[in-house]
Amino acid sequence: MIRLLTAGESHGPSLTGILEGLPSGLAVTETDIAIDLSRRQRGYGRGDRMKIEKDHARIVAGVRYGKTLGSPLALIIDNLDWENWRDKMAVEDSGTQIKTGKLSSPRPGHADFAGAMKYHHDDIRNVIERSSARETAMRVALAAVCRKFFAEFGVRVYSHVVKIAGVSASSPQKDEPLREFFARVEESPVRCGDQVAEQKMIEVIDRAVDARDTVGGVFEVIVEGLPVGVGSYVHYDRRLDGILAQAMLSIHAAKGVEFGMGFGVTEVFGSQVHDRMYPAPNGIVRASNSAGGIEGGMSNGERLVMRVAMKPLSTLMQPLDSVNLATGEAVQALRERSDVCVVPAAGIVGEAMTLLALMNPFMEKFGGDSMTEIRAHVQSTPPSPWQ
Amino acid sequence: MIRLLTAGESHGPSLTGILEGLPSGLAVTETDIAIDLSRRQRGYGRGDRMKIEKDHARIVAGVRYGKTLGSPLALIIDNLDWENWRDKMAVEDSGTQIKTGKLSSPRPGHADFAGAMKYHHDDIRNVIERSSARETAMRVALAAVCRKFFAEFGVRVYSHVVKIAGVSASSPQKDEPLREFFARVEESPVRCGDQVAEQKMIEVIDRAVDARDTVGGVFEVIVEGLPVGVGSYVHYDRRLDGILAQAMLSIHAAKGVEFGMGFGVTEVFGSQVHDRMYPAPNGIVRASNSAGGIEGGMSNGERLVMRVAMKPLSTLMQPLDSVNLATGEAVQALRERSDVCVVPAAGIVGEAMTLLALMNPFMEKFGGDSMTEIRAHVQSTPPSPWQ
Amino acid sequence: MIRLLTAGESHGPSLTGILEGLPSGLAVTETDIAIDLSRRQRGYGRGDRMKIEKDHARIVAGVRYGKTLGSPLALIIDNLDWENWRDKMAVEDSGTQIKTGKLSSPRPGHADFAGAMKYHHDDIRNVIERSSARETAMRVALAAVCRKFFAEFGVRVYSHVVKIAGVSASSPQKDEPLREFFARVEESPVRCGDQVAEQKMIEVIDRAVDARDTVGGVFEVIVEGLPVGVGSYVHYDRRLDGILAQAMLSIHAAKGVEFGMGFGVTEVFGSQVHDRMYPAPNGIVRASNSAGGIEGGMSNGERLVMRVAMKPLSTLMQPLDSVNLATGEAVQALRERSDVCVVPAAGIVGEAMTLLALMNPFMEKFGGDSMTEIRAHVQSTPPSPWQ
Amino acid sequence: MIRLLTAGESHGPSLTGILEGLPSGLAVTETDIAIDLSRRQRGYGRGDRMKIEKDHARIVAGVRYGKTLGSPLALIIDNLDWENWRDKMAVEDSGTQIKTGKLSSPRPGHADFAGAMKYHHDDIRNVIERSSARETAMRVALAAVCRKFFAEFGVRVYSHVVKIAGVSASSPQKDEPLREFFARVEESPVRCGDQVAEQKMIEVIDRAVDARDTVGGVFEVIVEGLPVGVGSYVHYDRRLDGILAQAMLSIHAAKGVEFGMGFGVTEVFGSQVHDRMYPAPNGIVRASNSAGGIEGGMSNGERLVMRVAMKPLSTLMQPLDSVNLATGEAVQALRERSDVCVVPAAGIVGEAMTLLALMNPFMEKFGGDSMTEIRAHVQSTPPSPWQ
Repeated sequence: MIRLLTAGESHGPSLTGILEGLPSGLAVTETDIAIDLSRRQRGYGRGDRMKIEKDHARIVAGVRYGKTLGSPLALIIDNLDWENWRDKMAVEDSGTQIKTGKLSSPRPGHADFAGAMKYHHDDIRNVIERSSARETAMRVALAAVCRKFFAEFGVRVYSHVVKIAGVSASSPQKDEPLREFFARVEESPVRCGDQVAEQKMIEVIDRAVDARDTVGGVFEVIVEGLPVGVGSYVHYDRRLDGILAQAMLSIHAAKGVEFGMGFGVTEVFGSQVHDRMYPAPNGIVRASNSAGGIEGGMSNGERLVMRVAMKPLSTLMQPLDSVNLATGEAVQALRERSDVCVVPAAGIVGEAMTLLALMNPFMEKFGGDSMTEIRAHVQSTPPSPWQ
Repeated sequence: MIRLLTAGESHGPSLTGILEGLPSGLAVTETDIAIDLSRRQRGYGRGDRMKIEKDHARIVAGVRYGKTLGSPLALIIDNLDWENWRDKMAVEDSGTQIKTGKLSSPRPGHADFAGAMKYHHDDIRNVIERSSARETAMRVALAAVCRKFFAEFGVRVYSHVVKIAGVSASSPQKDEPLREFFARVEESPVRCGDQVAEQKMIEVIDRAVDARDTVGGVFEVIVEGLPVGVGSYVHYDRRLDGILAQAMLSIHAAKGVEFGMGFGVTEVFGSQVHDRMYPAPNGIVRASNSAGGIEGGMSNGERLVMRVAMKPLSTLMQPLDSVNLATGEAVQALRERSDVCVVPAAGIVGEAMTLLALMNPFMEKFGGDSMTEIRAHVQSTPPSPWQ
Repeated sequence: MIRLLTAGESHGPSLTGILEGLPSGLAVTETDIAIDLSRRQRGYGRGDRMKIEKDHARIVAGVRYGKTLGSPLALIIDNLDWENWRDKMAVEDSGTQIKTGKLSSPRPGHADFAGAMKYHHDDIRNVIERSSARETAMRVALAAVCRKFFAEFGVRVYSHVVKIAGVSASSPQKDEPLREFFARVEESPVRCGDQVAEQKMIEVIDRAVDARDTVGGVFEVIVEGLPVGVGSYVHYDRRLDGILAQAMLSIHAAKGVEFGMGFGVTEVFGSQVHDRMYPAPNGIVRASNSAGGIEGGMSNGERLVMRVAMKPLSTLMQPLDSVNLATGEAVQALRERSDVCVVPAAGIVGEAMTLLALMNPFMEKFGGDSMTEIRAHVQSTPPSPWQ
Repeated sequence: MIRLLTAGESHGPSLTGILEGLPSGLAVTETDIAIDLSRRQRGYGRGDRMKIEKDHARIVAGVRYGKTLGSPLALIIDNLDWENWRDKMAVEDSGTQIKTGKLSSPRPGHADFAGAMKYHHDDIRNVIERSSARETAMRVALAAVCRKFFAEFGVRVYSHVVKIAGVSASSPQKDEPLREFFARVEESPVRCGDQVAEQKMIEVIDRAVDARDTVGGVFEVIVEGLPVGVGSYVHYDRRLDGILAQAMLSIHAAKGVEFGMGFGVTEVFGSQVHDRMYPAPNGIVRASNSAGGIEGGMSNGERLVMRVAMKPLSTLMQPLDSVNLATGEAVQALRERSDVCVVPAAGIVGEAMTLLALMNPFMEKFGGDSMTEIRAHVQSTPPSPWQ
């Protein structure tokens, strides 16, 4: 069973992450991780901070001579701007630190208000340092290791942007080869493979910049190569769609998730929804994938397709009405340096959460302590109960 | 910590459920549970089976003289039709049982295909008996106990239908009293509080019946009275929206979930989304609830609002193309007796999953082994860090 | 992953248990379970209740035509004496029930005092009904299914009594065949394979009966056939000895557990403890098994050997000094009908807890959803990294 | 709920640990942690390595201005000898690294053999780097934070050595004040408060050094101030003794654990075991504590007392017979630099595991997100159901 914990404040000395339960013998390098960290930092509409931080994750446990050991893998991403925050984020209480400068005006849409109440903080900085999406850098880094794992079994996880502020883009067709489509996505500043939509998306982001406003959107995650029967219907909390939904809604600013046709299934009759099956040499074939690759809480052999709705960022350059909780006065919410659009980057986090969420259902099916053993298990799996 | 397990095949002798971790001293009766079980069995567009089964849950552990003991609570819902299934669902292998009559043609949209592959079943009945939504009766029964728990703390969970096959209905306004609205919902055959929409929903269900087809829709769950700070931003898997999304997507036929404005946030700019705060005698007040009561993965004191998309049932009276997996031939999918529309009932399951999902985040905040102790904890909670 | 929950008060209508995560295709009958339930009810020195209850577990979910379905398995053990307890243990509050007759004098050594405080019970019956060892009947029943599972892979779990009230018995030698030894144990009224000790054990029990006292002792569990590498050193909570220790100390009246030489290792030098290795055709061979089959938190291919210390039962016929918690007066502790010696039966519970505890570490190594698949995985496991 | 993960190879760049679920507002400094790390490094009979490493844990997340934030706490203990191991433990595969020098002769008593088989390692160094007890430094560091937490509620955890290689020492009497006794223990080179035994223990360690051998022993952990009702009888895996037993047997070289009288209960009759109760002004008082503070799987208000048997270290200066797994030849086991006696240090690890294990059962009872809130809960707890 895979377990993971992450730690780290946004402006603290570092982000730390531990991933326990990996098999031994998986080839992993810091470069593998750097690729995904870099993908997360790109995207049209990002603010200045992304230029400051050029994230690099150091592997400090669990890997030797380029291969996992089976022991917990630990990563550290140092905060390159730490020197400038050493006072504001000091671990120790020197007594002389400015106790002035406490933040007490929560930003609507953020964790600020509920977080301060929950943890009894009289300085909202104590909340925002951990509630910031900065934390997702570590999720992406740990998931990059899982990406290596799944690649060994032909499982690939992609993402692209299908909507920004009302501008929609098309998705790959059912049997369209994905490699080419997603090569285009990787080149796009908004991570959109539909070149007409891409231009309009850039325009709407520009309009938001001019309006000192922010935009949200929808990203789509597609998983190719997942074997049949990952997840289960036998107990409600083993359903793969539930597990993935939890993973997706754990992303900052996510407000919804849907699988396959998603909310579209509520507009039509059943005969227009379900994916008919036809005989094929090695089993069955289908003409559609409205289910998005999940039936009965299990992968069904088709591509897994899900979409996540991201709200516009809550920190606007035109600040929102708020309340100073220390004085009770009406104020403007505080402004942290921020981005106008993070949907492209959020897609990378969506890939990461998908990878992390798939590990346990996959490992329950195949088991094993080393890559050698897991490979043997995968190959030994009996093909069909009727043969 | 609350843990629960359910068991039981659709046509087996009974459904069984155990809920571990309840405090002692909570008043519970079988009648409390019967109310929710009955709500789950109603709704315009249900098939005949709902008339056969008049579910009753027996409490067989964990309650004495009308109060919980702190020990695990166990429920049994007997299958009133068991006599007719004794042979087909026999526990023991008598050797003479008809090994003919195995099902080998999976229904598109169901667990049939992936389930048979996963568990290596050569009889799809072995899958459908557990993958059936019949299982949700036990979830509803166990959740009825949690409903009693939350009522003691002023937390109430409601549901209503906001869409059926493209016909939309309105939701309560931000400060509209809920009791009256939901009294109307309880009277409605489609669990819809909007009387204009209700009539159209009935019409579209009738059209589906005529077309031998099925319809899906959207139900909305609203939670009132949840204190601020349930859930947490400090670790991704403690975010309340993620936890609730998992719960919702664990419902059969659910294909999407959204919170507050949901996918609507992807159509507009940020300034139209976030819920501004204004001073109020006891803290803050807001003019809108686009967030649906969750910010930063925590309850924020507003009503929690989420919507779930349900696909039309996969078992149509006009059967779908399928494959006989034993022979490889093209066939029509098997037909089980079924319903045309289950969205109203699904809302009750949605309430149940919400209640179950809220237990642990709530208990982490307040702790305690008995109702007496939890009440003391809730009352002792310090009001604000700035006071 | 295996999960299980049990429920049921000692004199309630039934015990209920659910075991989730079993593979499909495992042959199980109620008779398999009855065998272990019967073994648990025997033993020299048991009181009358064991004669009243002839436990039988009904399978009500998870098995069809003699094979597991992969869905949760549920068992019910009816309380045959329920009619006599219907009033005292009524689920509903009739209002007229005798509220007199509450128990308020805790028995030393039992859960009575701490349980009443924890759950705020003013009637100790609310505690003793669940804290009674009656509950272990369900553990034994669920574990009987795991016994069937492990038998398919050549893993066998035995127990015998090695001490009662200071009278010690010998254990099988390192390479002594176990089948014969344990056949003798099954015939022994004190589950002791050493016939000299057996006689003395019976005598000491008789002396305790005469003295209106009780006796404890030590049982030993031996596991044969466990493959190398079950459990892990990579994270502290995956160590097999820790997992088994938790399982053993979860047995009522257990006060200690030891592996292999156990506390004996603290009497000698290291050179007398560790099990030297010698070349053998298929790997290595050892001359001793002081480690009890576990090194570094993993099974090492030798027999797993552990011993559990059971205290004498806390309910004596010569009652112990106590306090009436309602009045504050010194009293004699209440007496429930009880046994003089339960060490033989406790050994069966020890086997059960061993079987349950081994399931997850075993399944993590091999994985799989059906017996067919698990068998294929076990057979495909690569033999040695050096070959 | 508290969760924790640790990572790090013995000679890797650092040990890393994350503790998730701590409340906010707990005062913690690196010095608090340093105290326990230093206690773990002392003890008569330690080898040279303890002098090389002067462990210091850096707090890199979860604390600001001397107080916990509620967010995950992360610690890093740098390996001060890392420069000397950079090649042997390199993360990356440079291709030119000496692939010679692989270890293939397992040490009896260690994880070496089973670990190599399990993870399919052809170099035993890949096992020993993580299976080394070096890892417990991080457990001790994380637990030091829990020690601060419990101190706020008057819960104190102590340890002392009660046996080394057959030399026994006395324990504190039932009502003997602990502070003084344990002050003596802290001064003792073998962490023994019995000055006669202390001298003999030192002598037996000296004899082992001369014999190029090793010695084990028994340490005792005592917890003072734990409230009544931590742990539970209602489900087997919530029993406090089971939870603590798992924690204790997760310590390297632990081969047994016992509570209160422990295995001694198996020598006598029940009337000599159970702790009678007598009226006292605030409830009850007892004349003995044979139960070791746990009845029915719960703390009962008495001191919690448990003892752990530690085997002599498996790495002797007179190496043990082994097998070269690469060649199949009989060899002597490899020798790593090692200690002769680690029982005193193991006691510190025992304290640590006790502290970590108590967190969740304690927090389940009291709940809360901040120290302010938990304090309010603890103070609000109702005293007795009969009042």
